[in-house]
Amino acid sequence: MAKSKHRPKISKHSVFSSAGTPKYIGKPIEGEAELRLIQYNNAGVLITENPNIEQIARKREPGFNHWIDLEGIHFTKLVERTAAAFDLHPLLVEDILNTTQKAKLEYFEKNDLLFACLKVPRRNPQSQTIETEQVSLILMRDMAISFQELDNTDVFSPILERMNRENSKTKRSRIDYLFYSFFDTITDYYYLSLSEIEEALESLEEEILAEARPLHQQRLFYLKREIIYLKKSLSPLKEIIGQLIRDDHHFFTDESKNYLKDVLDHVTENLDSIDTFRDDIESLTSNYHSQLSNKMNSVMKTLTVLTAIFMPLTFIVGIYGMNFDNMPELRQQNGYFYTLAAMALVAASFWIYFKWKKYI
Amino acid sequence: MAKSKHRPKISKHSVFSSAGTPKYIGKPIEGEAELRLIQYNNAGVLITENPNIEQIARKREPGFNHWIDLEGIHFTKLVERTAAAFDLHPLLVEDILNTTQKAKLEYFEKNDLLFACLKVPRRNPQSQTIETEQVSLILMRDMAISFQELDNTDVFSPILERMNRENSKTKRSRIDYLFYSFFDTITDYYYLSLSEIEEALESLEEEILAEARPLHQQRLFYLKREIIYLKKSLSPLKEIIGQLIRDDHHFFTDESKNYLKDVLDHVTENLDSIDTFRDDIESLTSNYHSQLSNKMNSVMKTLTVLTAIFMPLTFIVGIYGMNFDNMPELRQQNGYFYTLAAMALVAASFWIYFKWKKYI
Amino acid sequence: MAKSKHRPKISKHSVFSSAGTPKYIGKPIEGEAELRLIQYNNAGVLITENPNIEQIARKREPGFNHWIDLEGIHFTKLVERTAAAFDLHPLLVEDILNTTQKAKLEYFEKNDLLFACLKVPRRNPQSQTIETEQVSLILMRDMAISFQELDNTDVFSPILERMNRENSKTKRSRIDYLFYSFFDTITDYYYLSLSEIEEALESLEEEILAEARPLHQQRLFYLKREIIYLKKSLSPLKEIIGQLIRDDHHFFTDESKNYLKDVLDHVTENLDSIDTFRDDIESLTSNYHSQLSNKMNSVMKTLTVLTAIFMPLTFIVGIYGMNFDNMPELRQQNGYFYTLAAMALVAASFWIYFKWKKYI
Amino acid sequence: MAKSKHRPKISKHSVFSSAGTPKYIGKPIEGEAELRLIQYNNAGVLITENPNIEQIARKREPGFNHWIDLEGIHFTKLVERTAAAFDLHPLLVEDILNTTQKAKLEYFEKNDLLFACLKVPRRNPQSQTIETEQVSLILMRDMAISFQELDNTDVFSPILERMNRENSKTKRSRIDYLFYSFFDTITDYYYLSLSEIEEALESLEEEILAEARPLHQQRLFYLKREIIYLKKSLSPLKEIIGQLIRDDHHFFTDESKNYLKDVLDHVTENLDSIDTFRDDIESLTSNYHSQLSNKMNSVMKTLTVLTAIFMPLTFIVGIYGMNFDNMPELRQQNGYFYTLAAMALVAASFWIYFKWKKYI
Amino acid sequence: MAKSKHRPKISKHSVFSSAGTPKYIGKPIEGEAELRLIQYNNAGVLITENPNIEQIARKREPGFNHWIDLEGIHFTKLVERTAAAFDLHPLLVEDILNTTQKAKLEYFEKNDLLFACLKVPRRNPQSQTIETEQVSLILMRDMAISFQELDNTDVFSPILERMNRENSKTKRSRIDYLFYSFFDTITDYYYLSLSEIEEALESLEEEILAEARPLHQQRLFYLKREIIYLKKSLSPLKEIIGQLIRDDHHFFTDESKNYLKDVLDHVTENLDSIDTFRDDIESLTSNYHSQLSNKMNSVMKTLTVLTAIFMPLTFIVGIYGMNFDNMPELRQQNGYFYTLAAMALVAASFWIYFKWKKYI
Repeated sequence: MAKSKHRPKISKHSVFSSAGTPKYIGKPIEGEAELRLIQYNNAGVLITENPNIEQIARKREPGFNHWIDLEGIHFTKLVERTAAAFDLHPLLVEDILNTTQKAKLEYFEKNDLLFACLKVPRRNPQSQTIETEQVSLILMRDMAISFQELDNTDVFSPILERMNRENSKTKRSRIDYLFYSFFDTITDYYYLSLSEIEEALESLEEEILAEARPLHQQRLFYLKREIIYLKKSLSPLKEIIGQLIRDDHHFFTDESKNYLKDVLDHVTENLDSIDTFRDDIESLTSNYHSQLSNKMNSVMKTLTVLTAIFMPLTFIVGIYGMNFDNMPELRQQNGYFYTLAAMALVAASFWIYFKWKKYI
Repeated sequence: MAKSKHRPKISKHSVFSSAGTPKYIGKPIEGEAELRLIQYNNAGVLITENPNIEQIARKREPGFNHWIDLEGIHFTKLVERTAAAFDLHPLLVEDILNTTQKAKLEYFEKNDLLFACLKVPRRNPQSQTIETEQVSLILMRDMAISFQELDNTDVFSPILERMNRENSKTKRSRIDYLFYSFFDTITDYYYLSLSEIEEALESLEEEILAEARPLHQQRLFYLKREIIYLKKSLSPLKEIIGQLIRDDHHFFTDESKNYLKDVLDHVTENLDSIDTFRDDIESLTSNYHSQLSNKMNSVMKTLTVLTAIFMPLTFIVGIYGMNFDNMPELRQQNGYFYTLAAMALVAASFWIYFKWKKYI
Repeated sequence: MAKSKHRPKISKHSVFSSAGTPKYIGKPIEGEAELRLIQYNNAGVLITENPNIEQIARKREPGFNHWIDLEGIHFTKLVERTAAAFDLHPLLVEDILNTTQKAKLEYFEKNDLLFACLKVPRRNPQSQTIETEQVSLILMRDMAISFQELDNTDVFSPILERMNRENSKTKRSRIDYLFYSFFDTITDYYYLSLSEIEEALESLEEEILAEARPLHQQRLFYLKREIIYLKKSLSPLKEIIGQLIRDDHHFFTDESKNYLKDVLDHVTENLDSIDTFRDDIESLTSNYHSQLSNKMNSVMKTLTVLTAIFMPLTFIVGIYGMNFDNMPELRQQNGYFYTLAAMALVAASFWIYFKWKKYI
Repeated sequence: MAKSKHRPKISKHSVFSSAGTPKYIGKPIEGEAELRLIQYNNAGVLITENPNIEQIARKREPGFNHWIDLEGIHFTKLVERTAAAFDLHPLLVEDILNTTQKAKLEYFEKNDLLFACLKVPRRNPQSQTIETEQVSLILMRDMAISFQELDNTDVFSPILERMNRENSKTKRSRIDYLFYSFFDTITDYYYLSLSEIEEALESLEEEILAEARPLHQQRLFYLKREIIYLKKSLSPLKEIIGQLIRDDHHFFTDESKNYLKDVLDHVTENLDSIDTFRDDIESLTSNYHSQLSNKMNSVMKTLTVLTAIFMPLTFIVGIYGMNFDNMPELRQQNGYFYTLAAMALVAASFWIYFKWKKYI
Repeated sequence: MAKSKHRPKISKHSVFSSAGTPKYIGKPIEGEAELRLIQYNNAGVLITENPNIEQIARKREPGFNHWIDLEGIHFTKLVERTAAAFDLHPLLVEDILNTTQKAKLEYFEKNDLLFACLKVPRRNPQSQTIETEQVSLILMRDMAISFQELDNTDVFSPILERMNRENSKTKRSRIDYLFYSFFDTITDYYYLSLSEIEEALESLEEEILAEARPLHQQRLFYLKREIIYLKKSLSPLKEIIGQLIRDDHHFFTDESKNYLKDVLDHVTENLDSIDTFRDDIESLTSNYHSQLSNKMNSVMKTLTVLTAIFMPLTFIVGIYGMNFDNMPELRQQNGYFYTLAAMALVAASFWIYFKWKKYI
């Protein structure tokens, strides 16, 4: 029951108020926000908790790549402080804080920065729903800022892990390789959700092809909704990465663009998989309904055969249950047995007839 | 019954008459029209009822933004007087007065003005319909004129309220920020209708997934119609705002265009929501029909099981109701009880058989 | 029966013959053709029956706009004579005479004229069909020729009526305003047919939503066919008027093009209405089938309930109709009444069970 | 049964062999090929059987248009000889000989010739299938070569007939008018097949609208297949003629292009007719299924009414067939007649109830 | 059951790892990889097993075309060694080793080479599935490298066979004719799979049109899946060959491009065949369901006729089975025979009624 509370909500915004008002729109979350500065170069990685943003905004440490990661955008104070330090446009801040809006990419000329608002999916197998977390990225010439919702997990922990490895390509590369890693990692989350859905779909398919049962209908319903939602969430990513590859603002080197093309291939393949899944669900639904029709047909045939055999017999025994004074058959010595034999004959004829008509 | 009177009507116009004839086409409305002049600048807002339009048309008060608001276009005299004062094209006046036509944007070179004809939706939850009010806007370099249908509510009251606030951005900005506010406010009305539809859809979904019942079919029917109508009404707005952003006539500053892009995002998200709703309604309809098929199947199985169990029993009792003189079983001391036992056996066999076939 | 004779026929042409052979292809029509010359200017309108075409072709009366109107293209002689007088291309003449072909617009460089072949719809409410009349227009720099099928009504009579009015815009304008009037008038005929269809659809919708009945299916079938046919007939008009607006041959002044844009808006709105009608018919058809399924379901439930209640009762009375010598119940004083009570109990149990299962 | 042998086959080619190998792929045909040279000018037409191709290839008779017509491409020797004489590309020859491939148009720069591979449809009303013959055309600056499959009929006989007429336009024109005639004639074959299908569809429609019967389903199935196949075969022709009209190689004069445009109009109208037929078949199929549902519904209602009336009656007579010693009613003088009356009352009540419920 | 294990899997890649990591992703395969160098020119073909790749990479034998063929990409060592020798980009190597990714074509500027990743289909008639093998091609100015999965068969053996023939076009041509042969051969594999599917479809169609049976539904389901999968696998090939024909890097001579166009024609025809098959399967599915509905209808009619005939008869015999003291008919001499006659009359009336209603 009441499963519909898991339905993805429509995009929201404050109505009849001025645009650019910083207000958090999303799931109610409690807890403190976390702010980290990650500085890295070929030599190593340096992580500072609660750094002085205003100072970083004014001047970066030479020889280092800088990455500010903020987890917990519901704590609007910190977001506003960051925005003030880097002089971000109010509409940009509004987008960071509104977790119900669509993924998008925008270039802000004034600050010479790229702003990307992205969605990270996570499948909830219990409720058969896709939940998404919003991740906003600000890409500048010499640093990156990422904004995450407060959650159990850090979306970008795989990047940090790889960074900490000996001889990591991220450490050895310019900041645009980090930008690429953001997109690569987010695409991997889509792949993970798709793999889980694939597994669910395969087990459902096996069951339905074995024998369709009413409950399969509901599972197909929820699976289809998941796939539709995943597609709606993934489609903008393809366009965004395409824009980055064509990008006129030269945030990416040609080498990094080769890697972005690789991410684009993955996104495209994920979208293809989603289409395949949709086709599969359509086919399965149609198969499910065909099996149902076949069953109905077979039930009706059973009913007809039963009726055809027993109705005439009941009629015959009814005849000899009549109380007419003059019914010669009733007086015959073997009338009863002849009647039984006749009825057996009638039943057998119908049986043979229905066998011949392939009813049974 | 007779609900179809709420069906949105097709666009109308006077046939076989010259184009450009000023004639009100729309719902019959009674009551006086209202005309207001709103003058504002950073210092404050000045509202004049029934201003001298001809004088304003000739010369604006320097240092002020001017906005003329006319409510009650059915009162064609006032519209014609305004049109005469500003020397508006007859086709433009015809469009203002025809409330059944499509939303559109046109540039009139002669007067150097933009004319926008827009639709403001309001959901009527009782009749499950979307009603629209037509709002026409004339945007000039230094003033705006808005035409509304006479209604209980003033479509643009949220703008006036914000304008009256201390330090309002509208007051501090050039007239194009007011233009933007018009479009922003109208988009918000679409969002409001969509939120209401979302709620209606969610409660319907919950009910159907719990158990499909015939009346749900009608509710799905009306909900789908509402969504289709809302989409038909909203789609032109996307194109209109897109045109304003690309606009070659420089009615908007780059800063205002950033805000228009924000409105465009909202419109796009609303259109996406509408598509999602349509998909949901399709899925629900299909779910509804599947449940119906399943029920039919189960009803048929019940009937078949009943027939299969009682037809043979009735036949057996019929046999021993026959009046043959020579029926040895009838004379046996326990024939009756043996027969009862045999019938119990037959019934049990069928029961087990149908259990095994998963009919019950 | 035999309604399909009203089905719109496919486009025809003479096979395996040379192109450009003047031959009338269309409904067989009897009666004389009529030829009129309408000369008008700001001062007045002058109509000449059976004018000397060859003379007009050579030289026009200065200070007048000229319009030749020919009704009755089945009278090919007159068409050929007109074609000869103005030296028209054989393919153009073939198009005028073939009433089964598609609407189109062509520029003939040699004669510097625009040729438009258009369709005028009329709804036949008895047979629920759309019948079309073909109207061909030849637009020259200083005159117009129109070709109509012979019919009870003159398609362009509204133009003549307006022309005869005091201070008519047509009279005051150049010939291109007349051209515009042709297209405006034809578009109005589409609007008229659509209004009639709308009415038919609304009354059908009301009936179906009240209660679906088999005959509604046929009415939906014919209504859908009408709409499809109207769309096929109207769609080319949109393109044709679009071409006129973009027109490189300067047959229209900018002012006239504004009016053409108004016609284009009407055509687009009519096409939108057609799409809405199609959607409505789809929804109604689906609603119709849902109601049918629901009824089927309810019929089946009735059958099952009846069977479930009376089959066991019939079985019980059958038991006590058996003729065993030793049936103790039969000898009991109140056996009969106990049995009646037991049967009432059985019937009540089933009744309650089915109430609980929502079968009744 | 086994009708599927008439299913159009997929395009074939020799696998894993070099491209350009001349091999006949098509229906096995017996009989000799025929080769004719048709020379014509304004004065007359001269036909030579089995001409010396090599000589013609080297030098044409001045003052004549030349047309070589080869019937019987299964006789590959003759095709190869022709190809050798005119030095044709191996891929071109392969295309001529493969009758299963798609229609296409190619320009061969080396020989400065246009190669068109076209399909001529013929409807087989017995098997309800469309059979196609492949016709290949080689258009050079001063001559044409046509390749046909060996068949009872010469595809281009209408051209020859017209050519032989006094004052024929073909004879008077340059060779490109012949080229145009090829395409015009082939388009006419499509029109002929469509006319036959239209007739078949109309008679089927009449029957279905009168009363749907199971065999109609198969006829709809085959008719739809015919239409789909005709569309697949006709669609490339539209593109090919479009290319000829835009043609950069100047094989056609402007005058001939006007005639080609006329052919293009016919092709487009044929394609439109096909779409109309598809829509009609969809509507008919849906009408067919609706009628079936309605019948099913009415059968079920009949069954339910019968059951509802006779089950209670049978139960009542069963009661008074019981053998209890003490059944007071049985002893009453008029019990039997009262019972009969009661049963008539019960039957009438059910009858009235079902009348009211519109079951009967 | 468990057939779904044959479902084509979604594209896979290692998540959260750096791009460009060489890792085999595909079916687990055992066995040694094979490496061959094929050198050929007009004179002959020379095949070397396990050649010294590094040496070939540095310098080619003059006067020869070189082709390295590697079978068994699961043996990643050999692939990495080849990659190192020719200095291939890590992303290219990753693509070679990942057999789950989509077909694609890429130009690598650094090495001036074309990289093509292609799919070779093979139909498994037992499991009714399409299995694909991945073939990667590296096309350089003067040599080709092909990478295959280890399998029973060498995909390119037809090329080698043709090469070994006297006067083979491949031997006589430049290396780009070999490139063309790769694409031609792979296209032929698609054609082979399609031919097998066509045969399966035709035999299924014959069976269904004869009489639809439940098992046909499953066969249609699998056949449709095969076709969908084949289409998904073939579609990219069309784009790839199109790119080669437009190719800006001049890997192909104009003559070879003519042959590539021939391959493109084959690919397009195969795609057309696939669309035809899909249409056929849709039509068959719809035919299957219609037949089912018709059967259901006929079963229901049988049931209704049986009920209509025997229920009234059973009721009548019930009447005369009642035990009222006063039932005059029972005492009549011929009451029994009159009753039998009456029942025969009732049965005959119903029979005639149902004959007239076309139930039987």
